Amino acid sequence: MKPRIGLVLGDPCGVGPEVTAKLLARPEVAETADVLLVADPDVYACGQRIADVDGTLDRISLKAALEGTAPLDTGGCRLVDPEIEPAAGYDPGWATLEGGRYVIETLRGVLALARQGKVDAVCYAPLNKEAMSMAGSTFPDEILWIANEVGHSGPLCDCTFVDGLWTARVTSHVPVAEISKHLTEDRVIEVTRLIHDTLRRAGTTSPRIAMASLNPHAGDGGLIGREEIDVLRPAVAKLAAQGIAVEGPFPPDTVFLRGRDGEYDAVVTMYHDQGQIALKLIGFGRAVTVIAGLDIPVATPAQGTAFDIVGKGIASPEGLQRAFAVACDMALTKRVV
Amino acid sequence: MKPRIGLVLGDPCGVGPEVTAKLLARPEVAETADVLLVADPDVYACGQRIADVDGTLDRISLKAALEGTAPLDTGGCRLVDPEIEPAAGYDPGWATLEGGRYVIETLRGVLALARQGKVDAVCYAPLNKEAMSMAGSTFPDEILWIANEVGHSGPLCDCTFVDGLWTARVTSHVPVAEISKHLTEDRVIEVTRLIHDTLRRAGTTSPRIAMASLNPHAGDGGLIGREEIDVLRPAVAKLAAQGIAVEGPFPPDTVFLRGRDGEYDAVVTMYHDQGQIALKLIGFGRAVTVIAGLDIPVATPAQGTAFDIVGKGIASPEGLQRAFAVACDMALTKRVV
Repeated sequence: MKPRIGLVLGDPCGVGPEVTAKLLARPEVAETADVLLVADPDVYACGQRIADVDGTLDRISLKAALEGTAPLDTGGCRLVDPEIEPAAGYDPGWATLEGGRYVIETLRGVLALARQGKVDAVCYAPLNKEAMSMAGSTFPDEILWIANEVGHSGPLCDCTFVDGLWTARVTSHVPVAEISKHLTEDRVIEVTRLIHDTLRRAGTTSPRIAMASLNPHAGDGGLIGREEIDVLRPAVAKLAAQGIAVEGPFPPDTVFLRGRDGEYDAVVTMYHDQGQIALKLIGFGRAVTVIAGLDIPVATPAQGTAFDIVGKGIASPEGLQRAFAVACDMALTKRVV
Repeated sequence: MKPRIGLVLGDPCGVGPEVTAKLLARPEVAETADVLLVADPDVYACGQRIADVDGTLDRISLKAALEGTAPLDTGGCRLVDPEIEPAAGYDPGWATLEGGRYVIETLRGVLALARQGKVDAVCYAPLNKEAMSMAGSTFPDEILWIANEVGHSGPLCDCTFVDGLWTARVTSHVPVAEISKHLTEDRVIEVTRLIHDTLRRAGTTSPRIAMASLNPHAGDGGLIGREEIDVLRPAVAKLAAQGIAVEGPFPPDTVFLRGRDGEYDAVVTMYHDQGQIALKLIGFGRAVTVIAGLDIPVATPAQGTAFDIVGKGIASPEGLQRAFAVACDMALTKRVV
């Protein structure tokens, strides 16, 4: 049975429309999943022109889809029109209020479909936080915006997946000088549980998780910092007692080699650049972000709107393809579980 | 004109003897440089047996070499015997007092040759800090031991080179919580100057240097930490005024991609794992450490003694080959400058 994926093309001023058009032009997509693309027909058509691909999608209105008056089980890929009030225009290559408003309307639409169980997972092309703020979002990023939109108030973190390796981070946008203050046993346990559950949902039955240490050489027995002794080892012990297979804390400079080479499925990282340096070197452009903790599987490429190359037709759809594949995996498991 | 390299095979209980034997069995070595291998004949012969390579080296005594009674300008590769008091034996795969004593004696010998100008650069195979401590070294690592041995009291740092990219770090074995305290403008300038001079010495006439930021997203204009504004940008401005081509500070998670892809020759890193995570992913086993700041060029593979695989003949000589090549580059430039 194919999953049904709710797709959104991200910011209309970024590369989202063109990479979405490239994705949907691939025959593998229709073989893998049914798709409801929540998009304005003109914005999508513009993406198709830039991507130089053809194809007309059957069109239904979002309103009809949500009210149940449009049949959704006929399969294939359809365009779900949110009938957004037309903008004066979209300014390619810039963060704009119009772009942000478009993103908010289409994300809201696809999440409404997901909450009704009319799509099994959500995938969105790159969007822009600044544009969303211009359009009235009061959240620092789209992940918290989405969590609020679906009424989620539990634990949450973003996980990244690249070339078979998952990571999640315990702290994110904090100064290096303050990382240690934010590193609590509870948060380490929470993030490790979230990535564990996310891997299971993405199809890894028994995830093998490595924990990176905070300090060089894993603290060298306390000589280079005590967080490994005071926070990380107790967290690993408690997680093990809860049946989570996590090992470490390991020195940060070799744990990613072990992950990349298949010894672990995931690495729990302590701070932003610890994981990001590794992920970008392993597979820049191929990384996928998954929001861990939500009931609805949500995946997106880890890259941004690439405003500098919008409209040139050169943006790679690879990140979106991989995000779409992860969304499919999570959608299937969701049905099985 | 060929450079003359002083070579030491590192800890006799590690993989040093076997990788040194593999290195010297390569015909390219004799084409590139003359070599004085400061080593005990039996230890080197043991390395040859493990590596399964042949070859007898002409033998002179270290004493004669230092006193000038042995001619050194006949070229080729010779074994310089330090006539170390025989150990009861060397215990392969362990950090031992005997191993540390051997390392200290041979390093002392090769550095004495270097100080007399009898070798142009020094290259040593992996050694073990713990063994050196057992044998009486009071320094935390061999780099400080070497600096003391040659009477160096000026600025010093270790640089790492892998696949065309150099890095140096402003802080090293300090807890993450204390990095910011150690990040001074003077130290940033000192390390950047050291790597700049090291690159020039290794043959890069006009080094292009990138500075990594400390905080995620380069601090995002002060939202995620102020070190970029208060320390790094002023340091970059002062370095530019001194004629050093350094740019940044750049976000840490993309600066290594730019370095790896050839946009920069070097990245100045702010802390241990920032650079080490990147270097190990770029070229684990191919990285070379160079001691920056010394008059004598000194290079060594960045890997350790690999005690777990000693004697099996499977240790790769690649790191030592690359360290040897860097030593040759620096030796040649030294002669030219």
